Amino acid sequence: MPMILYGLCGEDPSVHFSPHVWKAIMALRHKGLDYEFHPVPFTEIPKLEGGFSPTVPLLRDGDTLVRDSFDIALYLEKSYPEAPSLFGGEGGQAMARFVEGFSQTVIHPAITRIAVADIHNLLAPTDRVYFRKTREARLSQTLEELASNRFTEAAEFPRKLEPIRHTLKFQPWLGGDGPLFVDYILFGAFQWARVTASVDILKADDPVRTWFERCLDLHGGIGRSVRAAA
Amino acid sequence: MPMILYGLCGEDPSVHFSPHVWKAIMALRHKGLDYEFHPVPFTEIPKLEGGFSPTVPLLRDGDTLVRDSFDIALYLEKSYPEAPSLFGGEGGQAMARFVEGFSQTVIHPAITRIAVADIHNLLAPTDRVYFRKTREARLSQTLEELASNRFTEAAEFPRKLEPIRHTLKFQPWLGGDGPLFVDYILFGAFQWARVTASVDILKADDPVRTWFERCLDLHGGIGRSVRAAA
Repeated sequence: MPMILYGLCGEDPSVHFSPHVWKAIMALRHKGLDYEFHPVPFTEIPKLEGGFSPTVPLLRDGDTLVRDSFDIALYLEKSYPEAPSLFGGEGGQAMARFVEGFSQTVIHPAITRIAVADIHNLLAPTDRVYFRKTREARLSQTLEELASNRFTEAAEFPRKLEPIRHTLKFQPWLGGDGPLFVDYILFGAFQWARVTASVDILKADDPVRTWFERCLDLHGGIGRSVRAAA
Repeated sequence: MPMILYGLCGEDPSVHFSPHVWKAIMALRHKGLDYEFHPVPFTEIPKLEGGFSPTVPLLRDGDTLVRDSFDIALYLEKSYPEAPSLFGGEGGQAMARFVEGFSQTVIHPAITRIAVADIHNLLAPTDRVYFRKTREARLSQTLEELASNRFTEAAEFPRKLEPIRHTLKFQPWLGGDGPLFVDYILFGAFQWARVTASVDILKADDPVRTWFERCLDLHGGIGRSVRAAA
């Protein structure tokens, strides 16, 4: 029986954009594992699998349920050790947390400010109500205020990518000679922006762009199976 | 014959503060290798070992010369594989480049702006002339202008450390259960600030502070062998 991966979607169930779910998708593909993708809107997530998790990704593998993208990667690494490694050893497993930290504390907040109003507009009506209320409270601004500032935010965005550019001077992937989960961590963030944002945040001549395009080509081009917003 | 490590020093040869040299010191200690430390002022570096390198650290191991802290770590990992690993596998070796990128593009520029005038004051007279000229050109400000802004810079500094704090929520070291070269990369930056800056940049209750103090205790407390400036 294939695994089931539950992931967030917009009003169109084929438009799925969660950065964390994309990390899990790429991890499953990297391991060469079969899975069924079940898209769910925000407000249906708490009902999944008896209320197992308030967030997605949520993975069912036989009788096992695993939530959180990093925990899913750790689970897959431990349960399917014969498949290609997601971390390249214990040091890589530890250091991937640093890249997760960079992604979630530097890149995610910036993409949120750039794309939050666009994300709202991709959602089904019930989800829109939930999303506006929670995001406006969290960000202390209306979606309209955030939208009006998105080009300024997008213009400041490229300077945050210096640590990635530095790494790509030495190697083609953040994981070294080939991609590892650490690539998928940052891919998830840029894919989230690609699928939702009405402004393109990566310049054509940026080495980060080149790396991102190569990520989109991985695993049968699964990243390109959802169209770009901009 | 023990190895020779050449490192930068101030007017007092015991005050050595280069972040890159500290990375090399910690890497040698981690591997349990014997070395002699040869402190040199800025303007003597180009004369070392027949002009082998314009910068330190510079390591002599028998007939082999190696420059650049990351290259020294790679050299030690390859040449002394039986000693404790600096990277914890190939994935860790690749991902350490990302942490180097974060350190050198986010943390180093901030510490430079905070400490550059203090560093100048630690140098011997000939070095002061060289240092003022090169740093004022690079930073497009006088040392006095930079010094007058250092408290503002220092106040903004802690928010740059979120990726480190995120990592330390999951594990005691950036390298995981124990320190790896990745810890020494960021240790080097904070040690540089500790030895030179007239303002303390890490708050007492910051988890990054706790981790840094543990780094100072490593390898016989070698990091504490040079006194703090503030």
